[in-house]
Amino acid sequence: MSNKVLIIGGVAGGASTAARLRRLDESAEIIMFERGSYISYANCGLPYHIGDVIKERSSLLLQTPEAMSAKYNVDVRIESEVISIDKENKFVEVKKTKTGETYKESYDTLVISTGSSPIKPPIEGINSPGIFTLWTVPDTDEIKKYINEKKPKKAAVIGGGFIGLEMAENLHEAGLEVTVVEMLDQVMAPVDYEMAQLVQNNMDMNGVILSLGDGVSKFKIENGSTTITLNSGKTISADLVILSIGVRPNSELAKNAGLKLNQRGGVIVDKHLRTSDPNIYAVGDVIEVEEFISKDKAMVPLAGPANKQGRICANNICGANEEYQGTQGTSVAKVFDLTVASTGANEKTLKRWGKEEGKDYLKTIISQKSHAGYYPGSSELILKLIFSPDGKKIFGAQIVGEDGADKRIDTIATAIRLNASIYDLKELELAYAPPYSSAKDPVNMLGFVAENIIKDKIYFSKWDDINPEKPSKYTLLDIREDVELLVYTMPNAKHIPLGQLRSRLSELNKDDDIIVFCAVGIRSYNAARTLMENGFKNVKVYPAGTNFYKAVY
Amino acid sequence: MSNKVLIIGGVAGGASTAARLRRLDESAEIIMFERGSYISYANCGLPYHIGDVIKERSSLLLQTPEAMSAKYNVDVRIESEVISIDKENKFVEVKKTKTGETYKESYDTLVISTGSSPIKPPIEGINSPGIFTLWTVPDTDEIKKYINEKKPKKAAVIGGGFIGLEMAENLHEAGLEVTVVEMLDQVMAPVDYEMAQLVQNNMDMNGVILSLGDGVSKFKIENGSTTITLNSGKTISADLVILSIGVRPNSELAKNAGLKLNQRGGVIVDKHLRTSDPNIYAVGDVIEVEEFISKDKAMVPLAGPANKQGRICANNICGANEEYQGTQGTSVAKVFDLTVASTGANEKTLKRWGKEEGKDYLKTIISQKSHAGYYPGSSELILKLIFSPDGKKIFGAQIVGEDGADKRIDTIATAIRLNASIYDLKELELAYAPPYSSAKDPVNMLGFVAENIIKDKIYFSKWDDINPEKPSKYTLLDIREDVELLVYTMPNAKHIPLGQLRSRLSELNKDDDIIVFCAVGIRSYNAARTLMENGFKNVKVYPAGTNFYKAVY
Ligand SMILES: Cc1cc2nc3c(=O)[nH]c(=O)nc-3n(C[C@H](O)[C@H](O)[C@H](O)COP(=O)(O)OP(=O)(O)OC[C@H]3O[C@@H](n4cnc5c(N)ncnc54)[C@H](O)[C@@H]3O)c2cc1C
Ligand SMILES: Cc1cc2nc3c(=O)[nH]c(=O)nc-3n(C[C@H](O)[C@H](O)[C@H](O)COP(=O)(O)OP(=O)(O)OC[C@H]3O[C@@H](n4cnc5c(N)ncnc54)[C@H](O)[C@@H]3O)c2cc1C
Ligand SMILES: CC(C)(COP(=O)(O)OP(=O)(O)OC[C@H]1O[C@@H](n2cnc3c(N)ncnc32)[C@H](O)[C@@H]1OP(=O)(O)O)[C@@H](O)C(=O)NCCC(=O)NCCS
Ligand SMILES: CC(C)(COP(=O)(O)OP(=O)(O)OC[C@H]1O[C@@H](n2cnc3c(N)ncnc32)[C@H](O)[C@@H]1OP(=O)(O)O)[C@@H](O)C(=O)NCCC(=O)NCCS
Repeated sequence: MSNKVLIIGGVAGGASTAARLRRLDESAEIIMFERGSYISYANCGLPYHIGDVIKERSSLLLQTPEAMSAKYNVDVRIESEVISIDKENKFVEVKKTKTGETYKESYDTLVISTGSSPIKPPIEGINSPGIFTLWTVPDTDEIKKYINEKKPKKAAVIGGGFIGLEMAENLHEAGLEVTVVEMLDQVMAPVDYEMAQLVQNNMDMNGVILSLGDGVSKFKIENGSTTITLNSGKTISADLVILSIGVRPNSELAKNAGLKLNQRGGVIVDKHLRTSDPNIYAVGDVIEVEEFISKDKAMVPLAGPANKQGRICANNICGANEEYQGTQGTSVAKVFDLTVASTGANEKTLKRWGKEEGKDYLKTIISQKSHAGYYPGSSELILKLIFSPDGKKIFGAQIVGEDGADKRIDTIATAIRLNASIYDLKELELAYAPPYSSAKDPVNMLGFVAENIIKDKIYFSKWDDINPEKPSKYTLLDIREDVELLVYTMPNAKHIPLGQLRSRLSELNKDDDIIVFCAVGIRSYNAARTLMENGFKNVKVYPAGTNFYKAVY
Repeated sequence: MSNKVLIIGGVAGGASTAARLRRLDESAEIIMFERGSYISYANCGLPYHIGDVIKERSSLLLQTPEAMSAKYNVDVRIESEVISIDKENKFVEVKKTKTGETYKESYDTLVISTGSSPIKPPIEGINSPGIFTLWTVPDTDEIKKYINEKKPKKAAVIGGGFIGLEMAENLHEAGLEVTVVEMLDQVMAPVDYEMAQLVQNNMDMNGVILSLGDGVSKFKIENGSTTITLNSGKTISADLVILSIGVRPNSELAKNAGLKLNQRGGVIVDKHLRTSDPNIYAVGDVIEVEEFISKDKAMVPLAGPANKQGRICANNICGANEEYQGTQGTSVAKVFDLTVASTGANEKTLKRWGKEEGKDYLKTIISQKSHAGYYPGSSELILKLIFSPDGKKIFGAQIVGEDGADKRIDTIATAIRLNASIYDLKELELAYAPPYSSAKDPVNMLGFVAENIIKDKIYFSKWDDINPEKPSKYTLLDIREDVELLVYTMPNAKHIPLGQLRSRLSELNKDDDIIVFCAVGIRSYNAARTLMENGFKNVKVYPAGTNFYKAVY
């Protein structure tokens, strides 16, 4: 069967589709159109080239058009924008971007992998010089050139998502003073508010200025510097502005061709990644996917899904019947000293779905060491797990820490994908030697703690039930050792070291609302068990102890 | 219900049982007997204290008897050896090791967590001074003292298992010249022969001398130095000898009490961890477990299982009905620059079970980067996956590399535990950002490659189908770029860079047995696809390319 396949877009989804297709079918005619000058490049590495962490620009270009064409026998046409699709007659119209010249190319099968583009809202002054988005290799070149030539001192990053924060870090690496402006009251939307505090505190420690809960109302350029006015009236000045406030799918082409789109402009595909036209597939940022947890429709612009969809799409073009099983949104980012990772749904999302804590979901936040504490170099991880009240379903997890967060999120992401319960987490047999983990891995611990919650063995306070700035209705019980108090004291806490608790129970009131504290949560849990078994009625454990408390406030 | 629980053994399994028990039941009477002077210590950290990687001896003692008794209200009796169990009358006899005094203690429930001890076979001279085993804190003290006082220059480690290799590394750290003597033809039995070569080469590079395939026939001490005579007649001299040739369960007590043991002396327990006597539980190294993959019985002396069994045992003592679901044997070790990790069954084990490659199992070895190659600091991982011919079952995996091996083994261990197929590995949505992984994680890649094998898209050669010392019946095709050949050439290989392959097909013979080579296996796979699709009949890919080839030979 002769098969002429046109692919629109030559990077993650497009190039992956082309490569797999060639491996499956040596005789297919494959033409890949890319409107830019580069194909198959490492989008995800671009911020790091700006910070000079990735020194060689060439290492970002995983395939050149020449190499791709030689190795995969793909007709790679760069600087070639597909400007329309005639799905009835099965051809596309292509414009050579350099000359403006257009021509038609017919297809048996068409693949749309046009990706997404950064949003540029209609804010006054947004198109001024010195204001950039970062999405492509030329974007990177421009920003680098601007930095080299203009030597900006101050940068503002608008948007505190993962790309914004990667940019903040890399501009900081490049020697700029950086302010991050974010409309929401937290950075890093995939994690919940309290987890984001950890990231924010670390950014703060690294000298990045955060301006949260305030959007941009206008940009004004004066003497080469931009004044950013926020909705609150506050102004920020910057010599370089990076806009990183989200993306929208590049789906005009699909729309004009009459393909079905969702409300957000995402191309609607079936499980086989086929659009509403049977001869047209679509993959990557441009498509709507099924969210793995909720089965709702979502847009998830990530490289892992794009690459995997490309492979499935190629398989199906070659006659397979493979289904894409949805996207969990597993993601990770390095932000200064921390790794921030998440998978599945966060609590904000559950609430948006109308779910109620206690009734529809439970959660826990714990602190654990990245590896055995007695082996050098371990650091604290803060892990949050959200699960169904019967424990049978894990909705999502979030992890922040200096080391080992990526590993634990992968374990949990695997568990979620395989429909594990929190009881399965207890049993996971993960690799233990002192440099790598503990005999009970942090993920096992999440399982244990989740079980304890379900079985009423532990009640956690809310992280903000105690607030250094507000009087508390709770009796705080600090059960750490004397020496630990020298380093950090909890204001207004009663102090009884765990080892003395049983003999000093009479100092506490059984009817009081008590929140027990330690550094991690383990000793306070042991203390809480003692209190509960001794008739104390309202005992809660502060989640992840002072490790967390100190980091969120 | 009053409950008097005696626990024999105060470390991993015993202390974990005691701690959980106390949390569940404040009123239980818990007595923990430990014949040594230390409880609740980090066995797994001992080798690192000898190498001074873990500097503080005290950090190995996770709980002192006083702390454990104060915090958990456990009656901790150290230097108290249980010397007999009267299961009919439900009491044990205890000997105070310092005084020899004995007494009886009754129980409602007894828990045996006596662990295992290093094997000391009846080899001539094995009890000479200067020959040590490492299992306890006093063992560590003795070895450290010996090193400090006698300043030995040369050490021999007998046994190349993970503890032996950790000791080799730590003695090397401590400045000694180290020889490892191993009876098998490889170190690190949990991985297969070819994977062990990677470890051996790295040890060699680090200056450790390996003596494989040769057991010890006698030890002879002369002038403070030991001469080790091997079965082959070869002799090795050493000032310090560490015996690390395996362990046997400490089950004499159980045996004498009439509890059921298996042939290897392991205490037989049911799924609830109950021994043949309903009032006696057993956990940890001393018990026989069900091997998760084969459902066969096995002895797996690891801390993760011991700790988890302790928790299950405590739950069941308090009325739960929890089952232990078997042990996969997931393990990891740091050996010099490498991490060696494995989970499930290896190929040697499958063969021992009478399984045949092709019929009963398939396998693949691939090379992958620890994280995106364009981000600094990535290194090569070599991954081996063993799976059923229909792909529905994953039997096991082995990973060796400088970085990220522990993470991938955890992902696969989770997948195995949740009964994933190789098709599930393809779909795992793992966290990707350049510092952590690639858009297709190495574990996804294992899924892809496994699928390709099952669907006849790729045939791998055996790793030893090519041997630098033997003439080959294969045509070797090196499809790397010219510049790569400057660094390393494959002897006797025909060289056609991948990009020229299609135009130079006529230089190759379609009936030849061809093995294609590149650095990793990806380009050679692409080349193999091209050849196969062009009518070449016998094309194989060399697994994990020159990365592996160079490391195994
Ligand atoms: C700075 C940055 C950092 C990122 N970091 C991460 C990360 O750490 N982890 C992660 O998972 N994801 C990350 N991503 C997201 C990831 O790169 C994308 O999800 C992925 O590239 C999407 O693949 P795609 O094929 O859909 O689109 P793209 O890879 O963007 O490719 C689409 C291509 O189509 C071309 N095109 C569009 N319209 C046309 C047309 N009409 N004709 C011809 N060509 C056209 C575009 O020029 C573009 O080159 C990052 C993205 C960026 C920009
Ligand atoms: C050097 C070393 C390194 C290790 N590294 C790792 C690793 O990296 N990863 C891993 O998973 N595992 C590792 N292990 C194995 C792990 O430590 C054991 O699997 C685990 O400790 C077993 O727990 P257990 O409770 O069965 O036995 P143990 O922890 O050994 O405890 C048994 C205790 O029982 C006491 N006892 C025995 N008989 C009696 C009696 N009759 N009366 C009173 N007391 C008695 C013993 O003195 C001993 O203290 C390592 C072990 C060693 C020695
Ligand atoms: C470069 C690019 C074209 C390569 O596509 P690809 O060939 O499908 O992907 P890879 O090079 O990772 O190779 C994967 C293939 O090699 C196989 N493979 C991987 N390791 C192997 C090994 N050691 N031995 C044999 N085969 C192996 C896999 O099975 C897979 O083949 P399959 O899909 O036919 O099963 C594409 O990945 C790309 O354009 N990437 C850059 C853009 C991008 O992804 N950006 C976003 C992230 S920054
Ligand atoms: C020290 C020792 C007695 C502690 O036992 P333990 O209390 O069961 O174990 P941990 O201290 O790890 O705490 C785990 C408990 O804390 C809970 N927990 C963990 N993190 C928590 C947190 N942040 N908040 C609340 N609870 C938490 C867990 O749920 C678990 O409780 P559970 O079993 O009742 O569900 C035991 O681990 C031991 O002796 N270890 C040393 C010996 C050893 O294991 N050697 C081999 C390895 S080197």
